[in-house]
Amino acid sequence: MTLEFVKAHGTGNDFVVIEDLDDRYGTALTSEFVQLVCDRHLGIGADGLIRIAPGTATAPGTATGTATGTGPAASYFMDYRNADGSVAEMCGNGARVVGKYLGDRGYVTGAFALATRAGVKQLELHVDGRGCVDQVTVDMGAPGPAREQPLALDGLLGPGWDGTGTAATLVSLGNPHAVVFVDGLVAGLDQLPVETVGPRIEHDRAVFPAGGNVEFVQVLDAGAVRVRTWERGVGETLACGTGACAVAVAGQLRGVTGERLTVRLRGGDLRLDWAPGRTVRMTGPAREVAHGTLGADLLARLGEGSLPA
Amino acid sequence: MTLEFVKAHGTGNDFVVIEDLDDRYGTALTSEFVQLVCDRHLGIGADGLIRIAPGTATAPGTATGTATGTGPAASYFMDYRNADGSVAEMCGNGARVVGKYLGDRGYVTGAFALATRAGVKQLELHVDGRGCVDQVTVDMGAPGPAREQPLALDGLLGPGWDGTGTAATLVSLGNPHAVVFVDGLVAGLDQLPVETVGPRIEHDRAVFPAGGNVEFVQVLDAGAVRVRTWERGVGETLACGTGACAVAVAGQLRGVTGERLTVRLRGGDLRLDWAPGRTVRMTGPAREVAHGTLGADLLARLGEGSLPA
Repeated sequence: MTLEFVKAHGTGNDFVVIEDLDDRYGTALTSEFVQLVCDRHLGIGADGLIRIAPGTATAPGTATGTATGTGPAASYFMDYRNADGSVAEMCGNGARVVGKYLGDRGYVTGAFALATRAGVKQLELHVDGRGCVDQVTVDMGAPGPAREQPLALDGLLGPGWDGTGTAATLVSLGNPHAVVFVDGLVAGLDQLPVETVGPRIEHDRAVFPAGGNVEFVQVLDAGAVRVRTWERGVGETLACGTGACAVAVAGQLRGVTGERLTVRLRGGDLRLDWAPGRTVRMTGPAREVAHGTLGADLLARLGEGSLPA
Repeated sequence: MTLEFVKAHGTGNDFVVIEDLDDRYGTALTSEFVQLVCDRHLGIGADGLIRIAPGTATAPGTATGTATGTGPAASYFMDYRNADGSVAEMCGNGARVVGKYLGDRGYVTGAFALATRAGVKQLELHVDGRGCVDQVTVDMGAPGPAREQPLALDGLLGPGWDGTGTAATLVSLGNPHAVVFVDGLVAGLDQLPVETVGPRIEHDRAVFPAGGNVEFVQVLDAGAVRVRTWERGVGETLACGTGACAVAVAGQLRGVTGERLTVRLRGGDLRLDWAPGRTVRMTGPAREVAHGTLGADLLARLGEGSLPA
């Protein structure tokens, strides 16, 4: 037997994608196997593994055990696994990669519904001059209620900084975010000691009872911001999709950005569209870097439940 | 056009391998292209890129511009590029991967000569029950003269450690190494603060005029050691081939290990064979993780000098 894969990324958040439209590998992709495939030295290497399964697929890690347990029926299911082998509910950058995969192969066109463990998401494909999917819009759902939270950053930032009076906007997009606008206190977003400030906020019990993600934002104008992201349990990353959504929400609540916002992340640009009372629409690129087949040594590590060729 | 690749590793030191037996891509693999392919989020991801070229290949970065400028003729040339796009003279783990690649595809059998920028190396292939190359022996050449160097580690190691009187054995395998036997001062190799001690030794001008690699060694018996490696400019790694050779040399000069030594690295085991007056022979595994083709976006970044399909 052989197992094909695609290595892809959305704004630098990278994935090994495995098409499984016959729903054969839901249980064979054990935690150990996923860890090995995602290992950057011993495997292919990725932030996560995405199995593209039918909407009726078995879905390890869901309450009902099936992909379409919530929301209207969808033809495809994004079975997302983190690099540590655990299941994840949703990944905005990953959803765009799934949209490109299905669109470029003619499985879907225009707009379609994608089942995830966080419910069914609406996707819209945008093609380039060659007819390939270049950008994908994902409806990320409605944000939770937001609130302001003072931060205790005094003495942490060093010369050129003044952390006094700094506050974060706390908002949930399924996962918790703290959005910190650094314009008032900044020597420059690039000089911000994110590796020091990020974990301090992540683990601040007054901000997050159980940890959370942090976005540091520099406002360029009402339509554009630059952002550095600190992800819970990971560290600084090139991009975070739900984090970009949180920035769009927080910017409007603060009155510093408009309904349409370009979020410039280290891994690329995302375009956000949101107004109070609506869901957040996120548009951004998806890229396929390589496609191939897993080697025999990796294949031999597939768990029980895999079928012979 | 398409460009095929193999993702492979030797004891966790991982590479993107590109077969180029028509010698078409020597100049097309620009520094920028290699950086992108080796980028772990935006590309495939690897410690380095290996182009397998004919022994008569053009060899960017050599004094003569051709692969066989030194040593006897070899049929194949390992054109090794670091992940930062620079050329490298030699890589022991990479040479084993090249041996497996050529052996598994029937290009070579038994033993053969491989040209590198550090001259021609002799390789010997060992096959498993399926006839696939499992282990490869590489003749790593003769070590340079060795000497003892006291280290100033007092106050650096914390409770449970005593750095007084610690010394390193300095030896060159083409690149400079400091081998530190930690048995006398150790709370345990796993507890050693390599991230603190490693860079201190790397940048100690009394040890290395221009930086160097450090191996921390725990002797199990005369035939086996455990090693953690700190590579110059990289940090702690899973394995270092020349470092394992340096350990074998230093252990014998200290009288604590024999002529045949198993070096247990975080990324796997290497077997070393050396006696004074001889060259160092290193045997270890090579694994292919996946094979495939580069995506169009990556291909478009190939430099000038590439040929149309």
